[in-house]
Amino acid sequence: MLGCRVARHAGLLGPHGAASMAGRPLGLSQTRSLFTRTSRSQPIAQQSQESVRRTWKLFALRQASARQLSGRPLPQSRSSLLNFGYRAAAWFGSSIVIFGIGVVGFFLYDASTYKTHHSNDGDIAVSKVALNPRRGGPKNLPILEVCIDDDDNDEMRKQKDKPKLVILGGGWGGVAMLKELNPDDYHVTVVSPANYFLFTPMLPSATVGTLELKSLVEPIRNIMQRVKGHFVRACAEDVDFSSRLVEVSQIGSDGKETRFYIPYDKLVIAVGSVTNPHGVRGLENCHFLKDIDDARKIRNKVIENLELACLPTTSDEERKRLLSFVVSGGGPTGVEFAAELFDLLNEDLTLHFPRLLRNEISVHVIQSRDHILNTYDEAVSKYAEERFARDQVDVLTNSRVSEVLPDRIVFTQKGPDGKTVTKELPMGFCLWSTGVSQTQFAQRLSKKLGDVQTNRHALETDTHLRLNGTPLGDVYAIGDCSTVQNNVADHIVAFLRNLAWKRGKDPENLELHFSDWRNVAEQVKKRFPQAVGHLKRLDKLFAEYDKDQSGTLDFGELRELLKQIDNKLTSLPATAQRAHQQGQYLAHKLSRLARAAPGLKANDILEGDLDAAVYKAFEYKHLGSLAYIGNSAVFDWGDGWNLTGGLWAVYAWRSIYFAQSVSLRTRILLAMDWAKRGMFGRDLMCY
Amino acid sequence: MLGCRVARHAGLLGPHGAASMAGRPLGLSQTRSLFTRTSRSQPIAQQSQESVRRTWKLFALRQASARQLSGRPLPQSRSSLLNFGYRAAAWFGSSIVIFGIGVVGFFLYDASTYKTHHSNDGDIAVSKVALNPRRGGPKNLPILEVCIDDDDNDEMRKQKDKPKLVILGGGWGGVAMLKELNPDDYHVTVVSPANYFLFTPMLPSATVGTLELKSLVEPIRNIMQRVKGHFVRACAEDVDFSSRLVEVSQIGSDGKETRFYIPYDKLVIAVGSVTNPHGVRGLENCHFLKDIDDARKIRNKVIENLELACLPTTSDEERKRLLSFVVSGGGPTGVEFAAELFDLLNEDLTLHFPRLLRNEISVHVIQSRDHILNTYDEAVSKYAEERFARDQVDVLTNSRVSEVLPDRIVFTQKGPDGKTVTKELPMGFCLWSTGVSQTQFAQRLSKKLGDVQTNRHALETDTHLRLNGTPLGDVYAIGDCSTVQNNVADHIVAFLRNLAWKRGKDPENLELHFSDWRNVAEQVKKRFPQAVGHLKRLDKLFAEYDKDQSGTLDFGELRELLKQIDNKLTSLPATAQRAHQQGQYLAHKLSRLARAAPGLKANDILEGDLDAAVYKAFEYKHLGSLAYIGNSAVFDWGDGWNLTGGLWAVYAWRSIYFAQSVSLRTRILLAMDWAKRGMFGRDLMCY
Repeated sequence: MLGCRVARHAGLLGPHGAASMAGRPLGLSQTRSLFTRTSRSQPIAQQSQESVRRTWKLFALRQASARQLSGRPLPQSRSSLLNFGYRAAAWFGSSIVIFGIGVVGFFLYDASTYKTHHSNDGDIAVSKVALNPRRGGPKNLPILEVCIDDDDNDEMRKQKDKPKLVILGGGWGGVAMLKELNPDDYHVTVVSPANYFLFTPMLPSATVGTLELKSLVEPIRNIMQRVKGHFVRACAEDVDFSSRLVEVSQIGSDGKETRFYIPYDKLVIAVGSVTNPHGVRGLENCHFLKDIDDARKIRNKVIENLELACLPTTSDEERKRLLSFVVSGGGPTGVEFAAELFDLLNEDLTLHFPRLLRNEISVHVIQSRDHILNTYDEAVSKYAEERFARDQVDVLTNSRVSEVLPDRIVFTQKGPDGKTVTKELPMGFCLWSTGVSQTQFAQRLSKKLGDVQTNRHALETDTHLRLNGTPLGDVYAIGDCSTVQNNVADHIVAFLRNLAWKRGKDPENLELHFSDWRNVAEQVKKRFPQAVGHLKRLDKLFAEYDKDQSGTLDFGELRELLKQIDNKLTSLPATAQRAHQQGQYLAHKLSRLARAAPGLKANDILEGDLDAAVYKAFEYKHLGSLAYIGNSAVFDWGDGWNLTGGLWAVYAWRSIYFAQSVSLRTRILLAMDWAKRGMFGRDLMCY
Repeated sequence: MLGCRVARHAGLLGPHGAASMAGRPLGLSQTRSLFTRTSRSQPIAQQSQESVRRTWKLFALRQASARQLSGRPLPQSRSSLLNFGYRAAAWFGSSIVIFGIGVVGFFLYDASTYKTHHSNDGDIAVSKVALNPRRGGPKNLPILEVCIDDDDNDEMRKQKDKPKLVILGGGWGGVAMLKELNPDDYHVTVVSPANYFLFTPMLPSATVGTLELKSLVEPIRNIMQRVKGHFVRACAEDVDFSSRLVEVSQIGSDGKETRFYIPYDKLVIAVGSVTNPHGVRGLENCHFLKDIDDARKIRNKVIENLELACLPTTSDEERKRLLSFVVSGGGPTGVEFAAELFDLLNEDLTLHFPRLLRNEISVHVIQSRDHILNTYDEAVSKYAEERFARDQVDVLTNSRVSEVLPDRIVFTQKGPDGKTVTKELPMGFCLWSTGVSQTQFAQRLSKKLGDVQTNRHALETDTHLRLNGTPLGDVYAIGDCSTVQNNVADHIVAFLRNLAWKRGKDPENLELHFSDWRNVAEQVKKRFPQAVGHLKRLDKLFAEYDKDQSGTLDFGELRELLKQIDNKLTSLPATAQRAHQQGQYLAHKLSRLARAAPGLKANDILEGDLDAAVYKAFEYKHLGSLAYIGNSAVFDWGDGWNLTGGLWAVYAWRSIYFAQSVSLRTRILLAMDWAKRGMFGRDLMCY
């Protein structure tokens, strides 16, 4: 009723807007509804039958006028079905009007986003030093002392004389810093070979067209706008710690490399990692999944193989080889890629490609450990393995790849009997995702810093994330390229030794009572937040290590105790989560340092452990791991808390990444992509 | 009123759904509205005052019960502002509910698109011949007689024994055919090196990230589903017309080329064109804009140059060179690219890049003719030139590029005095878009067919689009790779000669009266629809060419007349529009031929001009040209009808392409892209 009235009277109402249209004709339709009720309520007022009859007449009169308006007979009965129909129509009508208003609104907004006029800005103030930088430093290279956009506007000009903070890398660590830094504290410069931030955890989804590449990247310049920073697209090559200069390189359009220096007051190294080759031969026959271009190459290779498999000249054996997809590495990246690939082949391929292909496809995951997702809870690993078994994804555990050939992969597998057998697998595509290793730049720094840096896999920092071996408070390292040194024992022993000498005692003869031990433990907790979990039962630990039951710990016993704790502290995982937390931590600390600077200066405190004085040590809080495993997802919050599930878990998995996404822009793009997949499936095109 | 009721009673209504919510409380509110009306209509029924008073009571009773329901005092006065407020709130509330229903609905739908179970399809019937094709043909190559998906389902199986239609190319011509062909007439195979159709007219928009690459492509397999066709990703190399075999090649995953034959009954050549190098040296320093990969390369190069221009080591001169963008060719592609580039630099660049860059950017268009867009109406060209002048896009007319060097472009310009001067322009990027030329495959066929093919630029067909020199009705050519031969004179003269000999007359002595001439003209019109416009005033033409005023045309005079018409017929433009029309025409004709086949067979009509017997000749209908020129657009419908305008024209321009887009999928993607541009601007990332 409602709907048809709205539609029928729209013309009559003429000049009245949409809002009044909704209200006006209802009057007519509801006249009838009241009328019906009145007749039904007759028994209540039987004594006034006569009057009601008159009222009827009155209504009949009004009815007539209503009929003149509409010109059509009014429906005489209103079944609930009819009612429902009318109402549904009304809602449908309203939806269209509201949608229409939305569309018109969007067009009005959109029209305002086109600049129709522009003017040449006239002369722009650019410092001469910015255009012709002074040369200097150990290699006499140009030094970027002033940026060409330092005078672009008043806000930029204000930053000019602030301390220079240089961030090497635009990944999780660097971007977390940019998002948390106090905008007015530093003159920020980001150096990276890529001018975008890449949302790495969803990269496997981009390899099969579930997501667009565009939705996973955000221009660093957008992110940097908040801190009014500067971006330099270049590669970090070296750092001169004494003159505080970063040497960077850039390939010009003529293919020649130019190098220059970027000066810093504070330097943050967040250059990430590269894929670990594990010394395996033939990795040129593999694909990797570190950057956005890798995702595109993988997608094109997968489709290419499908197309080749369709050709009449392709033999049966060759077809099986082309359709054998091998993933080397059973960590989250490998597993998620295998799952996404399976989705593509299972959901989209069969719709358009010959059925024969679906039958000859095989997906294999080669994992060196007992289980896939071995860093997760065992229940989670098992769930993933069962899921893969059902989906006919072949999981080969306890297997190590020894060589990758263009058409097959050679690996050794340890059987349940402990014997190792060498096997071969024909393959048309291989993804190599077996952990990370150091970049060349990080290796160079590590070598330069000498004995202080002993870790072959990452740059070692103290718990304040300061790069070991560099002037205190100048250089920090975060993310995959770094590791926090957990030398609890050494640190505390040095501290106690110092304390003992000061008190005029021989440290070797030092005896600690329980109260002393509690103080030491407090010191450890503050300095090494990761150790807190291992220092919960102080009395128990004390009793355990007081082997002579003297009621005191001597120096040897204490060292033994702390070493034990050292061993329990594992190194932090090379994940986005860790880099993100380190970036946030460092941003807060640097902002704190900047605010403390005037006071410290006034009190002539310019040397010493300023970091420790103004801010706590870095503590990693594991928030859990998650992985997509093919129309289901797994979550592991640690300590045995975990969750596995089907489609609802997939939506939950998406929601978490949606929330973590770097900007409103990427969030909307992600939502659009998921909608596109639902509507049109994935892409099966090479472009 | 409406809104507040809906909101207030929603809780009371409890279990009733949203639809019933909309209706129910209206009854209460309208009670009041009717009530007011009743009291107003009192004068009409003054005699029944008593009864009305009773009715009042009755209503008061109902009112009370209504109040009990809501538990709140009813508003006593309804100012129009309040009303408006209530209604706005109602509409807002409804919008949210409708939006919510939409979102929930979408999620329900989305959840249904994930296959959670799958089964290996078991054994699939694939013909042995499909897996091990027989060898044969002049080169003894495998012949694709049966496809591996010929038995995939019942529908496919039905197509198996239909005549084989092979389409070379998946561009505008091929895809127009696929969309128009009767699904049951042929066993269709499409051969193309790309497994997608590219919406070329919008390619310039993709170079700067206004549109996504994905939105411009549609998988050929999707388009082909309607005709239950087969796709072979391969390159056409040669055709053996006598044994009806197309030779195709494909590079395998080992980099080796394999070749095989595809047999046909009807062959359609729609392989398109390549960029015309015009014999200019140094084109390796240019970018082209023919394929999707070109668009990506251009985008990355443009951003790369911007990034290099920001570096401190870049000299002022080098920066100006890097930011000098040159477009060679003032046709629609060149002009649209220049416009899109200007938009990027004008609208998006300044938001994030140093201001200095904006000041040093220059865009140049080099055009060999007097005007840009020279195939358009002059008014349109002028409008575009004025627009470009205002936008500081430098248009260099009457200029021919002689050489492209890595850092500069050398060209000659003819001044107003007719003198030619050689000039140089430093450039950081050059787009080469100066028309099209023949593909290698088309050149090979042209050479093979010998003297029949005299055009150096395209394959010549008759007006039935049959490739000249091939067995009649076997091979067709459409789109950019072909041209329709307009040899009106030769054709008619041959026809008349034949007629004369039959009548036993010497054709040289043939005299045509006006009625004869009218018959000849009819014949010409039918055979050469493009000539219709030039044959409107038959009497005038007759009088003009009857030079001896004999009242008859002799053979020489007639030949002169027809030659004149020949000259007036221009060759068809190499546009998407022409290819599309030819594809549609051919699809209709082939379907007609297939339907006529049984009848013709029954009557033993297997030879002869079957095409002409069942269908009219091809006639190109120019529907107009359009171009985007930077926040404004131009339209040219021919014959002086044209339109130029600002933002509204841009929306119109988009609407036209939106409507022409190949599928619902690409339409939705396009709409999403335009929305993205409005919300977030264009991309300024290299990925």
